Amino acid sequence: MPIITLTTDFGNKDHFVGSIKGTIYKELKEAVVVDISHHVTPFHIQECAYLLKNAYKSFPEGSIHIVGVDSELTPENKHIAVYVDKHYFITADNGVISLILAEVQPDKVVEINLPNNPYSSFPVLDVFVPVACHIFRGGTLEVVGKPFSALKQSREFAPRISNDGNTITGSVIYIDNYGNVVTNITKSLVEAYRNGRNLTLEARNKKLRQIHNNYSGIINYELDPSNRKGPGDLLALFNASGYVELAIYKSNPETVGGAATLLGLNYRDTVIINFK
Amino acid sequence: MPIITLTTDFGNKDHFVGSIKGTIYKELKEAVVVDISHHVTPFHIQECAYLLKNAYKSFPEGSIHIVGVDSELTPENKHIAVYVDKHYFITADNGVISLILAEVQPDKVVEINLPNNPYSSFPVLDVFVPVACHIFRGGTLEVVGKPFSALKQSREFAPRISNDGNTITGSVIYIDNYGNVVTNITKSLVEAYRNGRNLTLEARNKKLRQIHNNYSGIINYELDPSNRKGPGDLLALFNASGYVELAIYKSNPETVGGAATLLGLNYRDTVIINFK
Amino acid sequence: MPIITLTTDFGNKDHFVGSIKGTIYKELKEAVVVDISHHVTPFHIQECAYLLKNAYKSFPEGSIHIVGVDSELTPENKHIAVYVDKHYFITADNGVISLILAEVQPDKVVEINLPNNPYSSFPVLDVFVPVACHIFRGGTLEVVGKPFSALKQSREFAPRISNDGNTITGSVIYIDNYGNVVTNITKSLVEAYRNGRNLTLEARNKKLRQIHNNYSGIINYELDPSNRKGPGDLLALFNASGYVELAIYKSNPETVGGAATLLGLNYRDTVIINFK
Repeated sequence: MPIITLTTDFGNKDHFVGSIKGTIYKELKEAVVVDISHHVTPFHIQECAYLLKNAYKSFPEGSIHIVGVDSELTPENKHIAVYVDKHYFITADNGVISLILAEVQPDKVVEINLPNNPYSSFPVLDVFVPVACHIFRGGTLEVVGKPFSALKQSREFAPRISNDGNTITGSVIYIDNYGNVVTNITKSLVEAYRNGRNLTLEARNKKLRQIHNNYSGIINYELDPSNRKGPGDLLALFNASGYVELAIYKSNPETVGGAATLLGLNYRDTVIINFK
Repeated sequence: MPIITLTTDFGNKDHFVGSIKGTIYKELKEAVVVDISHHVTPFHIQECAYLLKNAYKSFPEGSIHIVGVDSELTPENKHIAVYVDKHYFITADNGVISLILAEVQPDKVVEINLPNNPYSSFPVLDVFVPVACHIFRGGTLEVVGKPFSALKQSREFAPRISNDGNTITGSVIYIDNYGNVVTNITKSLVEAYRNGRNLTLEARNKKLRQIHNNYSGIINYELDPSNRKGPGDLLALFNASGYVELAIYKSNPETVGGAATLLGLNYRDTVIINFK
Repeated sequence: MPIITLTTDFGNKDHFVGSIKGTIYKELKEAVVVDISHHVTPFHIQECAYLLKNAYKSFPEGSIHIVGVDSELTPENKHIAVYVDKHYFITADNGVISLILAEVQPDKVVEINLPNNPYSSFPVLDVFVPVACHIFRGGTLEVVGKPFSALKQSREFAPRISNDGNTITGSVIYIDNYGNVVTNITKSLVEAYRNGRNLTLEARNKKLRQIHNNYSGIINYELDPSNRKGPGDLLALFNASGYVELAIYKSNPETVGGAATLLGLNYRDTVIINFK
């Protein structure tokens, strides 16, 4: 029995998410519906893709992921259902699929073509939920749409490598709940170019000489607590999703501030790694 | 097996919602509990009614809706259980039922009368949950209370129609997650008075001449993107719940601002439609 | 079939909670996962303990509580699984257990010792979820760890009683969704020292002479509404969790302000009760 997930920018005050779940349970009494996030920044496709890319693989194969960001049907924003990497995605063709699955080719893509309500202002409820219920019951994509090959390609700004292979210039792609700054530089990219050299990471006016594997990596537990790094100190790490991240150790973003506010780093800002 | 929904002003930081769900699952292992919203503005009956009115019909018949806003028992705020439109509502008699179901007469209303804890400061847990579990198991309302006929009537400020039928004066009833401004003017009211005439919608110092059926209705896709309306432009539409709504196309309320902040419109402010 | 609960400081925007639930459902199709809170102030062990202490008993015996606050494994912060009061807790040994269960001795504590990923930067996913699934399936704690007796003791600052038994000096331990101020002074402590005397509660420059049993306790319903206390008035009550709480009757913290902002009271501030 597949799981249905929801990733939207609907927030959790409005009735939208409740209506969606009610409609699903009306059709499928035994459904399991899981919220991935309803707090995507409105219309922010890149952020939505970042969250889904990191979450979808945790779910069982066959899971059905409803994507409710920028989902209104227009001549330039078709409704599609995609089967890729053994998961289903129901979404508008706004580029989010190419961002979630940059390296994987979809097995099947259809342009959704339901008889009712295609131009609804609440397409997640009126279009995506019926498609999800259809798939849940074992229905094929062919029944709800026609083959679609023009999947919109959104290129996430990728890190640049200098010609001499000494510098990786990346950018900020996400600020998390702790104010931690996530960049688009992956662990595998750093390892591919490092070749055993020392590195310096530059973000604004800060320089760091190490990228740890967890947050407490900055702490030398052999030192006396008063002499070692700890809460409030800046560090870089390869986070659990495999990206270079800047964090303030155990900082509360609401009081002291997180790395984003303390470094003055925003979405799309530059972070540089030099090897030497 | 009925679904139990929760609509409260408890927020999602405190333990209240967790305690409620734990108590339900302790009684009913197989329950499905769905959050409609826990972010009703504290004690805001009208907002609570707006959310529930738009959400409850999505749920299967027989669903049990717990309403946790202004729910403390007082001589002026009785606890009631209502069966109406094939749904159950468990709430305080604070007017919310008359706002949710203005046009429908309840089939049955009882004043709840449980032996334990009636004056609890957490009546949703101590009173509403046991009543919900009782209904879930197929129990009748008569067992948990006595017939009640004095249901409090709260009149949502209704739109006014001028004597000549040329003007509808409505008000703002909700601001949604996108900063969109929802009014109490319904599509059916506009259609009843329009009679094929042109219309002008006035909100603060803005005038609009069209009410679309979805957000992208303002965009003329035959024009070149640089010459057409798009993100950041103001529009009016009949929203998915059937109300006239003002929106900024694809605006992010946290950065650019939504229609509410850009127009300076708040709850109860006036919006006027003229026909000519 | 046990319930799995989640209490974390992950917030609800990031993909963390979705990933955790996906991973649980991948292992346990029939699991029921309940969010207690994902809005613990980052790294705030006391707040986390307050929420869990008040919520866990609502859940059925045998429930499995995952605690995702300050959970990274370090030499000073072991991963533990605890069986106490017929509930399971999976957490870092950061003192939270001693705060939740001050008066109860754990029946069993093990230091978790899984083969994979112990130093993960996402230990809730990589360590706590597998342990929870193991317990869910009926596995014993001995299989996932070795006996542990050095449970960290965190002493919540307790209220002080003056030598003459006339004064209780307590502190603020939590500010809730309504801006209500919860202190560490319990109803049973007040009753133990009161001996039928009058009392005065002092918080900042305010004095109150009564502690009610519910919020509407301040209202004398025999008086005409214009002559009686009501919305906006300050009161003290024994809240549903048994603590002395200060509240503004029916106040909206976002507009008028709650008791915390109106009195200028923060976490750890002092509240005094005098008997005479």
